[in-house]
Amino acid sequence: MDNSKLQVIPLGGLGEFGMNCLALRYGDDILVIDAGMMFPEDELPGVDTVIPDFSYLEENREHVRALILTHGHEDHIGATPFLLSELDLPVYGTEFTLALAGRRLEEHELKEQANLNVVRPGETIELGPFQVRFIHVTHSIVSAVALAIQTPLRTVVHTGDFKVDPTPTDNLLFDLHTLAEYGQRGVLLLLSDSTNVDRPGYTESERAVRPRLEDILNRATARVVVSCFSSSVHRLQQLIDLAEEFGRKVCFLGRSMISVTEIAHSLGLLRIPDRILLRPQDVMSMPRDKVLVLISGTQGEPMSALSRVAVDDHKHLSIEPGDTVVLSSRIIPGNERAIYRMINHLARRGAEVIYGSMNPPVHVSGHASAEELKLVLNLIRPRYFVPIHGEYRQLAKHAALAEHLRSAGLEETFVLETGETLEIDARGARKGERVNVGRQCIDSGSLDEVVEDLVIRDRRHLAEDGFVLPILAINKHTGNSEGEPQIVSRGFLPAEESAELLEEAARVVKRTVENSSPEERADWGVIKDKIRADLRRFLHRHTSRRPLIVPVILEV
Amino acid sequence: MDNSKLQVIPLGGLGEFGMNCLALRYGDDILVIDAGMMFPEDELPGVDTVIPDFSYLEENREHVRALILTHGHEDHIGATPFLLSELDLPVYGTEFTLALAGRRLEEHELKEQANLNVVRPGETIELGPFQVRFIHVTHSIVSAVALAIQTPLRTVVHTGDFKVDPTPTDNLLFDLHTLAEYGQRGVLLLLSDSTNVDRPGYTESERAVRPRLEDILNRATARVVVSCFSSSVHRLQQLIDLAEEFGRKVCFLGRSMISVTEIAHSLGLLRIPDRILLRPQDVMSMPRDKVLVLISGTQGEPMSALSRVAVDDHKHLSIEPGDTVVLSSRIIPGNERAIYRMINHLARRGAEVIYGSMNPPVHVSGHASAEELKLVLNLIRPRYFVPIHGEYRQLAKHAALAEHLRSAGLEETFVLETGETLEIDARGARKGERVNVGRQCIDSGSLDEVVEDLVIRDRRHLAEDGFVLPILAINKHTGNSEGEPQIVSRGFLPAEESAELLEEAARVVKRTVENSSPEERADWGVIKDKIRADLRRFLHRHTSRRPLIVPVILEV
Repeated sequence: MDNSKLQVIPLGGLGEFGMNCLALRYGDDILVIDAGMMFPEDELPGVDTVIPDFSYLEENREHVRALILTHGHEDHIGATPFLLSELDLPVYGTEFTLALAGRRLEEHELKEQANLNVVRPGETIELGPFQVRFIHVTHSIVSAVALAIQTPLRTVVHTGDFKVDPTPTDNLLFDLHTLAEYGQRGVLLLLSDSTNVDRPGYTESERAVRPRLEDILNRATARVVVSCFSSSVHRLQQLIDLAEEFGRKVCFLGRSMISVTEIAHSLGLLRIPDRILLRPQDVMSMPRDKVLVLISGTQGEPMSALSRVAVDDHKHLSIEPGDTVVLSSRIIPGNERAIYRMINHLARRGAEVIYGSMNPPVHVSGHASAEELKLVLNLIRPRYFVPIHGEYRQLAKHAALAEHLRSAGLEETFVLETGETLEIDARGARKGERVNVGRQCIDSGSLDEVVEDLVIRDRRHLAEDGFVLPILAINKHTGNSEGEPQIVSRGFLPAEESAELLEEAARVVKRTVENSSPEERADWGVIKDKIRADLRRFLHRHTSRRPLIVPVILEV
Repeated sequence: MDNSKLQVIPLGGLGEFGMNCLALRYGDDILVIDAGMMFPEDELPGVDTVIPDFSYLEENREHVRALILTHGHEDHIGATPFLLSELDLPVYGTEFTLALAGRRLEEHELKEQANLNVVRPGETIELGPFQVRFIHVTHSIVSAVALAIQTPLRTVVHTGDFKVDPTPTDNLLFDLHTLAEYGQRGVLLLLSDSTNVDRPGYTESERAVRPRLEDILNRATARVVVSCFSSSVHRLQQLIDLAEEFGRKVCFLGRSMISVTEIAHSLGLLRIPDRILLRPQDVMSMPRDKVLVLISGTQGEPMSALSRVAVDDHKHLSIEPGDTVVLSSRIIPGNERAIYRMINHLARRGAEVIYGSMNPPVHVSGHASAEELKLVLNLIRPRYFVPIHGEYRQLAKHAALAEHLRSAGLEETFVLETGETLEIDARGARKGERVNVGRQCIDSGSLDEVVEDLVIRDRRHLAEDGFVLPILAINKHTGNSEGEPQIVSRGFLPAEESAELLEEAARVVKRTVENSSPEERADWGVIKDKIRADLRRFLHRHTSRRPLIVPVILEV
């Protein structure tokens, strides 16, 4: 093992959206930065959660020193339970980040045994050959950090997720000074968030949502229901402050809204004035213009509180004509239809639903736009640059954005996708060997179980054209078929249309068997293949469809 | 039959996105306005096209006088072949609209027998008790019209799809004067497009895209490839004009791009300068900075020309580093992932891909924003108003937008969803009886065939958790089961995990059969139900999943 080589090994989140996870290796020591999940695509039927394939870490388990979490969003912490169930690692993060990760660990009964270590921004921890400094950044979630990682080959800076909010609601400014210092001293490699590289200019400050929210409360004569991510503590603080000003009581609804606000409050991150809280069971009995409900479910998740309110199936809240519902959130790509369906239901109940882009906005992004990304690039002035957190189109754009730094010491930008590695040594940087990566799909209701590729491929196939099963009984003594072949199908054609076709298909199967030699008939693998091929041709000719065909031979 | 009653019968497009179709009935005469299709949702696996259920029209076939098409977009004409294959109707529309509808009819070999009648804007046709005037409007497609329909109970105005473009590229202004005249004389009912009601202000003119396109061509040093809807003749004209200015040859790629531009050119709607056209087979041999490719496939449709170019699988065009690809189009909700996947592939090939919102824009909408909608409401000043073309949230917003007209004669706004009807007579307007409506799903590759609900439900179920088939051979003479029950499953659990479970499941089935009385065993319906119930319980307990269970009994 060449000990003087630094390796950057992206295990998730580069060239894809979500499940951020990156390993940094120097010699025999590996640091893991973030372990996030991804929301599944529609093409993965029945799958609820997607996480990175951790086999690289498992194969190198004795070398992995720690997991460092940059902030508490699911696409950075959501796979923590799955990683910790395989590897026994110390975890480092800010207090709030670890509290959120702890919730997930609790759900998998891993909290007790977990080794969670709170680090404050400004502090440095030592992990093998690495000294890792936590640097405060502004983001839509509180307590987010960037990392400056001192290695024997100089410093690597990992931004985590960030925006450069000039007026954060908690007045905790982005720690530009520390970044500047590192830039001054010289940074070997910058890894920087590419999520919003498509947006020109600057992302608006979190404070930009206040005028619109104020305006909504000013005009509202009945209940106001606002949905945002439960981890958006800045947003919730602004809403609670406004409720106080407007003399409204605040009610939290939804499992994650209640538990995350409790955590934020207990850590002193969320100020909740005395006597402003309203219990869920008292919402409907309060005067309608004295209530502000803060509810989870911005993405139209079917079991979320807001989705249930939308179909009037929530224990504590019914929407009545004149109520206002605000979606103070973005639409995560892929969730459009579910969200619009929920909004339609809310509108049918008579609510005025406020969502989408307007000016001033009801939501601002937590990610840096192009000018902020340039600011960070210019402060750091790295020798090498690897854009992280984004699909290929975003990484490529971020790479182009850094071109002007060529004259300021940037030697090379590497657009890496998950699994592609970078090696840096005394001679310079180059792409290294690929490592095995991939996605693990976690099925609904069976959290410890990974659904394999084949199963998902079958489901996708089934979803398209259903299945056709030719079933044949073969006498185990004589080897002859007994009775007529039977065909069972589902999801293929409407029953009344398919009856005749499937009868004919049974005759096709019978003919295939009859035309086979005794040797073929004795080899069930062969006879099944022949049946499958003949039937596939027959069905495609008559219906243009390609159902999943599974020949079954029953020994009787 | 009460002859003095006017009925508005939405068969599609109200409370849903796409498949616009509306019937207007007076006494025994029915007019049909538009017959559009809808792009299927992900929840309809394997379905390619969704069209309205036309049973109301089929049940009243002797009363249906005509189909009128407002413009040539698929969500207004796409179901024409399916409607005409059921009802033999004359079709009215502008020349371009009928040419596009004719393409669809040809694909279904219905063109020859179709009765297509060209109407020019400004002309009036008489259909039973209705006089229908075609009124020129501006929209993203050329030759779009609104309709003023004179009925025995005064005038109904149907806007079709529109924006109020103050500077259309063909200088054919929106015919506001005619709308104003009708408004002056008094309009009974306005039906108006709600698609963009969420957007404040005015939609930008089609001309707004020119500066950005010019800028792109100015900077480009290699091939420029622009994708837009093939029916966006205004956009294509601007691109062809720019190509001429910049000394680039123009090549059309993609089936619909080639055929629609041919139609537009032959009708004199698209000006193509002499010798500017480049044959597809010559694209790669031209100097790279002398080529502008206009290509179909903005929505990432897997078989489209641009998708094939993205994966370098197109006969005539390969993307090389330095090329520019522009998506001059919007993202139709639901297509996000497919489009981004395509963009990622294009970026991997080294193209600079330009898409999304920027200022100035590469795409502008064809639909009116809030201020334009108010302008039309104010010009028409109807007695009754029904917002059309949109999901419920949009219809409700459009209804709210009309409230200020209360003092200018608006008596009532009705938010109707597909199937809800409106009746107007001498006494006023009210909601009428519901009619049967719904969606017909057309399967891929089997265009004449409607996939029934049950099949789709099965496919959805299969997509979630796969299937489990318990198979039992029963001796038809003795009624006893022969051999062991066998279990076949797909899309359920990975094979290595399920082997043991399915063996146990087979024993469950065996026990169920053994514990049944001879009467139960003789009734295959009963025994199947028992097997299904026992197996469902067993599998859910052990896996938390609910595969589709289909017991099969084989007579041997």
